[in-house]
Amino acid sequence: MARGTEVRISGLGGQGVVLAGVILGRAVVRNGKYAIQTQSYGAEARGSAAKSEVIISDEPISFPKVRRCDILIAMSQSALDTHIKDLKEHGILLVDRDMVKKLPKVQATVLRIPATKAAEAELESRMYANVIMLGALTRATQIVSKEAVEEAISESVPAKTKGKNLKGFKIGYLSLK
Amino acid sequence: MARGTEVRISGLGGQGVVLAGVILGRAVVRNGKYAIQTQSYGAEARGSAAKSEVIISDEPISFPKVRRCDILIAMSQSALDTHIKDLKEHGILLVDRDMVKKLPKVQATVLRIPATKAAEAELESRMYANVIMLGALTRATQIVSKEAVEEAISESVPAKTKGKNLKGFKIGYLSLK
Repeated sequence: MARGTEVRISGLGGQGVVLAGVILGRAVVRNGKYAIQTQSYGAEARGSAAKSEVIISDEPISFPKVRRCDILIAMSQSALDTHIKDLKEHGILLVDRDMVKKLPKVQATVLRIPATKAAEAELESRMYANVIMLGALTRATQIVSKEAVEEAISESVPAKTKGKNLKGFKIGYLSLK
Repeated sequence: MARGTEVRISGLGGQGVVLAGVILGRAVVRNGKYAIQTQSYGAEARGSAAKSEVIISDEPISFPKVRRCDILIAMSQSALDTHIKDLKEHGILLVDRDMVKKLPKVQATVLRIPATKAAEAELESRMYANVIMLGALTRATQIVSKEAVEEAISESVPAKTKGKNLKGFKIGYLSLK
């Protein structure tokens, strides 16, 4: 298996197929190997089918090829510094302004969201900064509808944190009104 | 953005970057579009960096190319029927034997794990079938160490369900003793 081992996990929606893939990917790197973990969503995901793939290798994996992105969300300074070079000209950059203090000059629309601060102030935990960023993303772009993200949040987070996650999403959405 | 929109979410470990990508991928398909959502784990993941990518398209996305897999986990009959053609000869097939009743003849090592039944009997919920399958996978193959998966489970599941998830993993691991 010199070229890497490919593992596919398949099942029904609700069986935790995606979580199993995420766990496996995270475990692999703990063993000093490299992993790419992929979910495809499309026609087949609309029914009840779920699929997650993990490619495991002893070497860095160049597949899928790193491509330039249209939209970059950076939730830390080091993330921004690492990824800004891959943002396309005239792309959209969303940063958590509480975590990213130094912004380079870029040919991009830059949106500074107070995600960590709002999460701590209004939801009592910075763990909700991610859904605040998703809210801002949804408002700022046409890539996905508000309702679709709300439904996806509801099915993806533990029941106990659903209310706060949805509230965080709304905070992010309204932050760009 | 005729060729699809690429979104990269980046930040630190613990900020929910992967979850944000999963939510976005799931939201996109609710809008009738297609998405591929990817995490890469490797050198950069070993620090505290986290990255998740979502490619969004109006058309089915053929990237990353579907390739044949070395190991297939099928947690439902329809999943098996859909994916079995992609399993390499002499690959490893793990099925949840409570969900997969009809096995085709294949040139593969077939392992039938009582995942759903054990999850219900010993953990009071079939939602733990996924970690039971991961336990069996870990025992049956050399792709990842037991300890690494246990650590990855601990960092990936809600604190409240950690004990049952780890117990489920152990049940799956020991099922192939």
